[in-house]
Amino acid sequence: MKVQQSFNERLNMLISNKSSLLCIGLDPVVEKIPSHLRYEKNPLMLFNREIVEATSDLAIAYKANLAFYESEGQNGLEALNDLETMISKDILLILDGKRGDVPHTSEKYAHAYFDQLGADAVTLSPYMGEDSVRSFMNNPEKGAFILSLTSNEGVQDFQYLQVGVDPLYLYVGKMVAKWNANNNCGLVVGARDMEGLKILRNALPDLPFLVPGVGAQGGDLKEVVKFGRNKAGTGLIVNIGRDIIYTDGGKKFAQKAKERAKSYVDEMSSLMKTTWNY
Amino acid sequence: MKVQQSFNERLNMLISNKSSLLCIGLDPVVEKIPSHLRYEKNPLMLFNREIVEATSDLAIAYKANLAFYESEGQNGLEALNDLETMISKDILLILDGKRGDVPHTSEKYAHAYFDQLGADAVTLSPYMGEDSVRSFMNNPEKGAFILSLTSNEGVQDFQYLQVGVDPLYLYVGKMVAKWNANNNCGLVVGARDMEGLKILRNALPDLPFLVPGVGAQGGDLKEVVKFGRNKAGTGLIVNIGRDIIYTDGGKKFAQKAKERAKSYVDEMSSLMKTTWNY
Repeated sequence: MKVQQSFNERLNMLISNKSSLLCIGLDPVVEKIPSHLRYEKNPLMLFNREIVEATSDLAIAYKANLAFYESEGQNGLEALNDLETMISKDILLILDGKRGDVPHTSEKYAHAYFDQLGADAVTLSPYMGEDSVRSFMNNPEKGAFILSLTSNEGVQDFQYLQVGVDPLYLYVGKMVAKWNANNNCGLVVGARDMEGLKILRNALPDLPFLVPGVGAQGGDLKEVVKFGRNKAGTGLIVNIGRDIIYTDGGKKFAQKAKERAKSYVDEMSSLMKTTWNY
Repeated sequence: MKVQQSFNERLNMLISNKSSLLCIGLDPVVEKIPSHLRYEKNPLMLFNREIVEATSDLAIAYKANLAFYESEGQNGLEALNDLETMISKDILLILDGKRGDVPHTSEKYAHAYFDQLGADAVTLSPYMGEDSVRSFMNNPEKGAFILSLTSNEGVQDFQYLQVGVDPLYLYVGKMVAKWNANNNCGLVVGARDMEGLKILRNALPDLPFLVPGVGAQGGDLKEVVKFGRNKAGTGLIVNIGRDIIYTDGGKKFAQKAKERAKSYVDEMSSLMKTTWNY
């Protein structure tokens, strides 16, 4: 009998086996794609394919932000559909849309992302509460990362508001831990506020964190690895997008992206072996 | 010189001129589309066209929830693109996706919905704060409805949390009022909690409210009209979807939907003329 593996178990095993925390953000903008591909029929798809082919021994996940595909119409839809077929089954595909809606509607999104586009996990917004995200959590093999503490300026507007004894971002995090019966929930925690990251990790030792904001947005990889992992040294996905995929604008862009990704993974591996006293 | 009209001015003028508050939710599910259309190449598009043609003298707006289109792949994209061309320019097209992301990404969504799909307004989630929704508010002619107090069960999880003197939904509402320099912001307020609707209207006399939850979800139209409008008797959009579009499953479904829509608008008109002592 095959024992079903939960999303979080699978993620943590991947991290250990590859000694990597790297998720590569596939958010291609046509104007930034190397010129030899830019005038092809579907530059997004060709660009993604080369990046994925060059980096798949390094990444544990690829994350596609849906905005970059929705804004490309037919080509975007085609490129989205292509992700599942070109990304190896042992690497995670995360569709980043920050969705959440009434249950009747969330079911439609979950069906689109998991069943049609083959995502392994999605990102969600917590504002509408549990029943707005439940449809994404019913299958233990599929992961759901809920926004807790984000990496943008607007993080100041609501996420630090005090609700009872906790700031809202922590209250959300603790609520997500309660929703995690299937061991397939995690949090989105930006690489902007290391104190917040520490507070979340202390309060929630087991939830995986998906961390954007390292690379082009300036977050510090060392601090993120130091404070973001769980006690087993896993439970952390670091997303790096622009700083890898746009390393070079020439014909060898994929090779250059691979080299950049390799240097990140080497640094991650080394940091993962470091013993800190804290 | 043409004086630019803000989205909120335009909305309020539409409500007055048509003596209607009706927004029809175009969220077609293939299994619920009448059987003579269900096996056509693009049932969604044909269904929407008939509904819009039959009801456009009654509705002030149509709202399409993006989940119902995303889950239909190529057909969904085609049906979405069709909305702008078939909905008359003097009726609002609202794309309901509850988006919100880092600025770099929200720009892509805003471009997709406003420039490519021709939306007049969108719905947004507030969790990530001002810079996550700002891209949708820069053009005064385009509207942005931000989630405040929603109509689902999960409303209980975060929206009523006390933050300082206000519950979170009201805190969000007051924040949106500060973002409203272009007179193009509004709130999503479900027809579930009439006390909450009153509190929001008292605190925010000018913001338009987009109200889902009347009809299939059970909200009371009379109460919504009584407490939801602004002092001028406008500033309110009542979305009704399933209860209108699925009135009948036969070949005359559009005619039947029109009759149902007419009875809603008659009731709205009559309620709008009623003087209440409150």
